[in-house]
Amino acid sequence: MNETMKQRGANASVIREIFEYAKIRKSQVGEDGVYDFSIGNPSVPPPVAVTETLKELVCDEKIHGYTASAGDPSVRRAIAEYINAEYGADERAERIYMTCGAAASLAITLRALCNEGDEVIVFAPYFPEYAVFIEAAGAKCVAAKPDLKTFEPDLDDLRAKITGKTRAVIINSPNNPTGVVYSEKTIRAIASVLRERSAEYGDVYLISDEPYRELVYDGAKTVYVPAYYDKTVVCYSFSKSLSLPGERIGYIDVTSGCSDDVFYAVCGAGRSLGYVCAPALFQFLAARVIGMTSDLSVYERNRRALYAALTGYGYEVAESKGAFYLFVKSPSGDAREFYERAKKHDVFIVPSDSFGLGGYARVAYCVSEKQVADSLPAFRKIIEEYGERNGRTQ
Amino acid sequence: MNETMKQRGANASVIREIFEYAKIRKSQVGEDGVYDFSIGNPSVPPPVAVTETLKELVCDEKIHGYTASAGDPSVRRAIAEYINAEYGADERAERIYMTCGAAASLAITLRALCNEGDEVIVFAPYFPEYAVFIEAAGAKCVAAKPDLKTFEPDLDDLRAKITGKTRAVIINSPNNPTGVVYSEKTIRAIASVLRERSAEYGDVYLISDEPYRELVYDGAKTVYVPAYYDKTVVCYSFSKSLSLPGERIGYIDVTSGCSDDVFYAVCGAGRSLGYVCAPALFQFLAARVIGMTSDLSVYERNRRALYAALTGYGYEVAESKGAFYLFVKSPSGDAREFYERAKKHDVFIVPSDSFGLGGYARVAYCVSEKQVADSLPAFRKIIEEYGERNGRTQ
Repeated sequence: MNETMKQRGANASVIREIFEYAKIRKSQVGEDGVYDFSIGNPSVPPPVAVTETLKELVCDEKIHGYTASAGDPSVRRAIAEYINAEYGADERAERIYMTCGAAASLAITLRALCNEGDEVIVFAPYFPEYAVFIEAAGAKCVAAKPDLKTFEPDLDDLRAKITGKTRAVIINSPNNPTGVVYSEKTIRAIASVLRERSAEYGDVYLISDEPYRELVYDGAKTVYVPAYYDKTVVCYSFSKSLSLPGERIGYIDVTSGCSDDVFYAVCGAGRSLGYVCAPALFQFLAARVIGMTSDLSVYERNRRALYAALTGYGYEVAESKGAFYLFVKSPSGDAREFYERAKKHDVFIVPSDSFGLGGYARVAYCVSEKQVADSLPAFRKIIEEYGERNGRTQ
Repeated sequence: MNETMKQRGANASVIREIFEYAKIRKSQVGEDGVYDFSIGNPSVPPPVAVTETLKELVCDEKIHGYTASAGDPSVRRAIAEYINAEYGADERAERIYMTCGAAASLAITLRALCNEGDEVIVFAPYFPEYAVFIEAAGAKCVAAKPDLKTFEPDLDDLRAKITGKTRAVIINSPNNPTGVVYSEKTIRAIASVLRERSAEYGDVYLISDEPYRELVYDGAKTVYVPAYYDKTVVCYSFSKSLSLPGERIGYIDVTSGCSDDVFYAVCGAGRSLGYVCAPALFQFLAARVIGMTSDLSVYERNRRALYAALTGYGYEVAESKGAFYLFVKSPSGDAREFYERAKKHDVFIVPSDSFGLGGYARVAYCVSEKQVADSLPAFRKIIEEYGERNGRTQ
């Protein structure tokens, strides 16, 4: 068999591992005594319209047939029209390719763009599966550094890392794991670097991974990336906005600045990876409820409560306005040690090493408000232990 | 971008192409004047229990969360229990991996088993996407010959084609495109050849692709393949049995004779190809309705009517008892010419060249009984034209 695949299967993602362990702890000490902030599984239910529309759609027994590989034409039209109305864009339905969620969108896009030996640049800290998808496409994952004050990309490092082998750069705003929303200035600057390097080396594509597009708070706004850089492929998923992560529905938009060949390559990659079509029922659902979101106010309240409490206790927390993650600095500077210490208090957070950057932990606050409130004394005790330890060693 | 992917995307599958053209003809001359036998899209509705169960399941707003990557544990248990009860097997829930349908099952299994440069043997005529998935896994597709009387595998050719590079052999019974159901004797003989060659070269896996498992007629029985060969991976889909092809739900069973490492490799391949989990709603549905099928009697009646009529008109038709395909010999011996001639009568069939064997056409009879009845005069005219042509040229 394939040894790389075996290793990838035997060593499940760290996030999944922590999530599974938290479940075991819950069965031992009860749900209420365990504070699981490990996984980005939306806690708020889907919009009522999702359930109502599904009830209606499943009565149509003809809905379950194959759609065209790229998706049902009416669905692709609805999505293009929404994008154009929302962002004043000029995208075409013929360039929308419906997928089985964000991971499929990325795996397909990378396979479409990359040849053996190419390089793809990601910004640390980054979603660890990026490296898996990039390597599966035969390319090498190259991590560029962040600005550690803002957790936006370090543009000088980006510029230095783009070479003749660079096929694409992945950006993810709002960001997993930091929650940071890139400013318009940053997007503009990234685009400028990419144009400069493309002129030298040939097209460098920008893959904009946007599963958290709608999850922004405090008046933050996401930028319509293709307006700033024309070789942009947008990867989207309805998992987070509609709280449907298990149903696997999203899309790729090969935006208007890309050639038709890129769209064909996306179709070919989807075909090669075994994606016949995205689940038909959820395609039709997406078209019907597009633009709606789950009640995101829970995340907003969780974010405020956690941020205020943690910074109040003395934690350093990245200033973030999106997704449902806080990125918290380990008081000792060691991510794994921070994770282990939190675990002793039944607080489950993800050490940042798995995101390609040491020294932090990701706190996923897509949980109940009760869990946030109940967890605060534990977060306080954890940082107090660092103080005690420092006291002893002084 | 990746040129191979572009080519795969730009040149859609022949089946899809014919299907799309038939749709255009329908819009020109009306539904009733076009006899589309091109695609394996089930015509009978799903069982009533599918609709009823879906209505119930979608009311549970918690059902849409991520499941474990391999599938929800209760779903995997239900599937293993069903297999064991149905076939007197001893398969384990821990070895079931839920997938987005048959294509995903195959793409994942091939990626799990193959290394760059390996070979995978298929039996002509074969489902053309096999070659796409095999090549995407870095391996080479090697076609073994059929016995042209029975359309079962030519075992001498199989034996000759297994080398030290052979990683796996794919079988598909009931078969697409011939409809043939392999006899127990054939399965036993294939297993014997594989054992003989494995002893010489190391493990050769048997991938049993079984989306048509339940679609057998006239008392034909499918054989439980893992009982005959222990290194068997079963790829299954609910698309055809439950008439849900667009919803993408199936599974891989890494059967008990395979090592745990094969299962891990399947998990790693699923992860690498971007399959986070199979659609949650349809996982829970599958567990609830497992063992049910759509009303297959329509296919049985279509098969009898078509077989009787076509052989009566003078066509040579492979004797088949499964799936929903007839494999009809081109009266001129040329598949493409047969397809073109049928097309002039608005009869859409798939020339066999795309299945890796010249001289035949596939007739997919998963259509309405009315379409079968209405198409018969056209089928008669087509073969009569061959007679007239022969008359003229004599």
